Amino acid sequence: MHAWQFEQVGTPLVLRDIEVPKPASDEVLIEIKAAGLCHTDAGILYEPHWSSRIGPFPLTLGHELAGIIVEVGSDVHDYAVGDRVGVFPGGRTRPGLGRDGGFQTYCTALPEDLVLVPDDVSYAFAAMGTDAGRAAYRGLSIAGGPLPGQRIGIIGYGGLGQIAAQIAVIEGAEVYVAEPKESLWEEIRASGVSGVAADIRDFADVGLELIADYAGFGTTTAGAIEVIADNGSIVQVGMGRETAEISTAKLVFKSARLIGSKGGTVDDIAYVYHLMAERGLNPTVVPITFDDIPSALDELYSGKAKGRLVALYK
Amino acid sequence: MHAWQFEQVGTPLVLRDIEVPKPASDEVLIEIKAAGLCHTDAGILYEPHWSSRIGPFPLTLGHELAGIIVEVGSDVHDYAVGDRVGVFPGGRTRPGLGRDGGFQTYCTALPEDLVLVPDDVSYAFAAMGTDAGRAAYRGLSIAGGPLPGQRIGIIGYGGLGQIAAQIAVIEGAEVYVAEPKESLWEEIRASGVSGVAADIRDFADVGLELIADYAGFGTTTAGAIEVIADNGSIVQVGMGRETAEISTAKLVFKSARLIGSKGGTVDDIAYVYHLMAERGLNPTVVPITFDDIPSALDELYSGKAKGRLVALYK
Repeated sequence: MHAWQFEQVGTPLVLRDIEVPKPASDEVLIEIKAAGLCHTDAGILYEPHWSSRIGPFPLTLGHELAGIIVEVGSDVHDYAVGDRVGVFPGGRTRPGLGRDGGFQTYCTALPEDLVLVPDDVSYAFAAMGTDAGRAAYRGLSIAGGPLPGQRIGIIGYGGLGQIAAQIAVIEGAEVYVAEPKESLWEEIRASGVSGVAADIRDFADVGLELIADYAGFGTTTAGAIEVIADNGSIVQVGMGRETAEISTAKLVFKSARLIGSKGGTVDDIAYVYHLMAERGLNPTVVPITFDDIPSALDELYSGKAKGRLVALYK
Repeated sequence: MHAWQFEQVGTPLVLRDIEVPKPASDEVLIEIKAAGLCHTDAGILYEPHWSSRIGPFPLTLGHELAGIIVEVGSDVHDYAVGDRVGVFPGGRTRPGLGRDGGFQTYCTALPEDLVLVPDDVSYAFAAMGTDAGRAAYRGLSIAGGPLPGQRIGIIGYGGLGQIAAQIAVIEGAEVYVAEPKESLWEEIRASGVSGVAADIRDFADVGLELIADYAGFGTTTAGAIEVIADNGSIVQVGMGRETAEISTAKLVFKSARLIGSKGGTVDDIAYVYHLMAERGLNPTVVPITFDDIPSALDELYSGKAKGRLVALYK
């Protein structure tokens, strides 16, 4: 099969022809149907600090994937051939980070990392749910939200931010989106939010109880601390920059908190699937092909992508 | 009675002769026996931003006070003349911030803001407990500590930090103190901590699960984020500077959190009194007189004070 493999930082992905892996007795083999592209993948290509967190190399990237089980190891009893599954990108094996992942058409996985995909959920949505969906939801739930009536700020309406804003609306929160790209505002307004502006500081009068920052450009974190309500929570998910100059005095005076959030759990994925299947969560997918993956990663890295890029196979 | 009153920022406290206040029917009158000096008092004298949070003026400062009840209003049934009490500085009236406080010899207070002082606890300790003690303890408890065996970092061994370090040791935590004044190290070592160093970064290998920063010099917050363990909590209490340049990326990668902590509750004061009466909490008091208050505030503001300055009356 073809595989887009990472060898070292600063060099393009290499297209290789590799063997379809054999599942161990405690694993399943998945025919991958959809693989999402994540800022982390783009970061791995260009930023040296990622290399110490992944590998061994060469490594097929793609840690946001869903597909159908085509083979099960002899010790696997909870899943069967034909099951549609999403794959948790964390866990012991970390497909796409710690072993070959979704930018190829088959991969192995452990049953503990699988989540059944409801019939009504597409493979594209199922793939998104495993990472963008999980991390978007986690960015709200780690701070105890979203709750009905809660005033929530979402910074950045990209792959994760759009999902988080929709989830918050679905759960009955009052949602305010800060997104500098005015070209997105019409779509954002149509999603049921209570307000949209270029900067979270524009919502200073709202009394935001929870702000999730999916951009992470330093100024976004600082702005969130400026406008958060007393006893409120700011969740940092995005890492557009590595540092921020913040007002610690305001954090103290407001008894507010800044929480770093990364990833999420298998249960978070299952909850996102529930929201997709039963409650109308309907994020924007930008479908691409297997061949498009390298150029699409560059597009993502440059900040031009709109919605979540998902490679669809077959 | 004599009262040290604040009129406006940048001018010294004024010594005035004022009437002993009359308690309303729902209040008590307290003869003040001890009043602690807080960095906030020093800040009020010199930093304009405080003025909007306090008043009306002129205002007798001193929000850390304990004394004996000498009169009770007709609607007060839970307290009696002769009760020894500490006064919660928050609440509806905020003695020393929102109405005349402890830098005079009598004040009124609401029963809901009173905490009975155990027989074995001195007035000096009782005063300290209402603010320094409460805020020091809150800086640990807001993040779920201190717990037996928990690895805790304390930044700054001043009025609050010394109390927090002692409380953490009493509760069985493994405590590491960062204090740049080497002249204090011998005393710190003798208090039962596991380590002392100039900078919290020196404890990078410890795996600190909770760090409370009672200094707040920006670099202290940044250093805490550098060395906190995964899923750990940093609590910001001190406000030596208003801002900090922090690594938001590390906060995310570690799933760590930075929590602003201010004040504490009436129950926190009661718990600190319990620790003083029953479990050996024995912070360093620097006793001063009523007349010393203005010069002692300057000493505090310059960072030269060691231990908690407490004015003792009679």
